[in-house]
Amino acid sequence: MRYLLTLRYLGTAYHGWQVQDNARAIQPIIQDALCEMFPQRPGVTGCSRTDAGVHANMYCCHFDSDLIRDPYGVVCAVNRRLPNDIAATACRVVPNDFHARYSVKAKEYVYVIYNGAHRDPFYHGRAYHYRFPLRVEAMDRAARDFVGTHDFSAFCAERAKEGDKTRTVMNARVERQGDLVRFTVTADGFLYNMVRIMVGTLLRVSEGKIPPDGIPAIVQSRRRKNAGPTAPAEGLYLNRVFYE
Amino acid sequence: MRYLLTLRYLGTAYHGWQVQDNARAIQPIIQDALCEMFPQRPGVTGCSRTDAGVHANMYCCHFDSDLIRDPYGVVCAVNRRLPNDIAATACRVVPNDFHARYSVKAKEYVYVIYNGAHRDPFYHGRAYHYRFPLRVEAMDRAARDFVGTHDFSAFCAERAKEGDKTRTVMNARVERQGDLVRFTVTADGFLYNMVRIMVGTLLRVSEGKIPPDGIPAIVQSRRRKNAGPTAPAEGLYLNRVFYE
Repeated sequence: MRYLLTLRYLGTAYHGWQVQDNARAIQPIIQDALCEMFPQRPGVTGCSRTDAGVHANMYCCHFDSDLIRDPYGVVCAVNRRLPNDIAATACRVVPNDFHARYSVKAKEYVYVIYNGAHRDPFYHGRAYHYRFPLRVEAMDRAARDFVGTHDFSAFCAERAKEGDKTRTVMNARVERQGDLVRFTVTADGFLYNMVRIMVGTLLRVSEGKIPPDGIPAIVQSRRRKNAGPTAPAEGLYLNRVFYE
Repeated sequence: MRYLLTLRYLGTAYHGWQVQDNARAIQPIIQDALCEMFPQRPGVTGCSRTDAGVHANMYCCHFDSDLIRDPYGVVCAVNRRLPNDIAATACRVVPNDFHARYSVKAKEYVYVIYNGAHRDPFYHGRAYHYRFPLRVEAMDRAARDFVGTHDFSAFCAERAKEGDKTRTVMNARVERQGDLVRFTVTADGFLYNMVRIMVGTLLRVSEGKIPPDGIPAIVQSRRRKNAGPTAPAEGLYLNRVFYE
C-alpha cells in the first residue's frame, strides 16, 4: 500500500526537508512519528527539498507499507507524536505508481512581505519585514513577465548544479492586503532559490532600480548578476502541490 | 512631558504585564528598552494587567520624562532593543492628566478559536484548538446576552478580591471565518478571567449543555459554578483600548 501524507509546517527551526550535515531536518521527524502505526519505520519520499527556514502550508510525501491503516487514524496518531511546529493535515491511499515528487504537475509558492513601518511581533519569522512602502502595481506588472516557458538561469543560485534550467511559470502575481504584500507563483518546477531571487528582483522594481518591464531582458541574459538579491527564507511558503 | 506608547506583543513567553514572583513580565522589558532615549529609565504605567500567556494587538502605557524626543524616533529606538515578540507601534505626547489605566473608556478583547479537525502549527500558542465543529450561531445568540450593565460575579475567577463586579458590556459577538471562530467583546472594564470564562461558557452552549438563551440566568445567579470553565490563555488578545 502506498500512502500519501500531507503536512503543514513552520520551517524556522529546520534545515529543510532532507537530512544534510547533521542539521535538523523534517523527513526523519516524520519517519519517527509514523512508527506508532507503522513499526517498520517506512522511508518517506517528499515532493521537494525545501530550503532552511522555508515554511509549508502544504507539503506532500509518500511511504509504503503492507499494513492497512485508517488514513484518518494515521493523521491523528502522527499528530500526537509530531512537534508543535509540524502537523499532518491529511492522509490517503494512492496507486503504487504515484510518486510524491515525480507525479507533481505544478507547485505554488507564496512569498509574504510584511510592509508595515514598524516590526510586528506576530509576523516575526513568518514574513519578511520590508519597511518602505512597496509599489505593488509596478511589482505586479513586472511579475506577469515571469509567466511562460523560459530558461530561468538568471533566477537560480549560482552554486546550483548544471542541468536544464527551463521551467514553465503558469501564474505570477503580486497583491496587497493591508500591510501584507504577497507574491504568488505557480510553475511546473522551481530552480534553487528561484522564488527568493524573483522576490529580490521585484523589490528592485519597487525601488525603481529595475523598470517594471525589465524582467524579460533579465531572463534573456541568463545571468544571475542581472537579477536582484535573494530574499530571506522566512517569507517563503510552499503553498500547494498539484498532482494529476 | 507625558508619553503614550502603544505596543503589540505575543504573550506566550511572559507572565503578563506586571512583575510578580520573579516571573518574566513585559513592564520591566519596556522600561529597559526606553533607556537609550530616556537614560533615567522612567517607570511605565500600563492600561491593564494581562494574564500570563495573553497576547496584545494593542496595549497602551504611559511614562513621564523631562526630555523632549521625537515620538517616531522613540518607536524606532525602542524596537531596536525590544525582543522579537514585543514591538512598539506608536508613540505620542499626551496631556499630563492622561492616565493609561484610569483614562480608559473601554477595552476590546478578541478570543481566537482554531476550529479545524487537526492541529495547525501556525496557530500553535496563538489560538485555542477546539476540534469539534462549533455551533457558531448558537454561540453568537448566547453572546448577545452579555451586552448591558450586569453584576458579572458568575464570570469572575473566585480567587479575585471582593469589590464591585458590575461592568457594562457594549458589544459581544461570535463570528466564523473559515476554520477560525472569533469571540469579540467590548466593555468598560473586565473582571479577572472574565473573557476566558465567557468563552468557556459559550463552548458549553455549542456543546448543548447550556441553552442559547441561558446566559441571563447564569449572570443573575452570580455564581461562578454556573458558568463554563476558564478557556486557555493562548487564544486571548487585548485588541483595542479606547480613550476619550
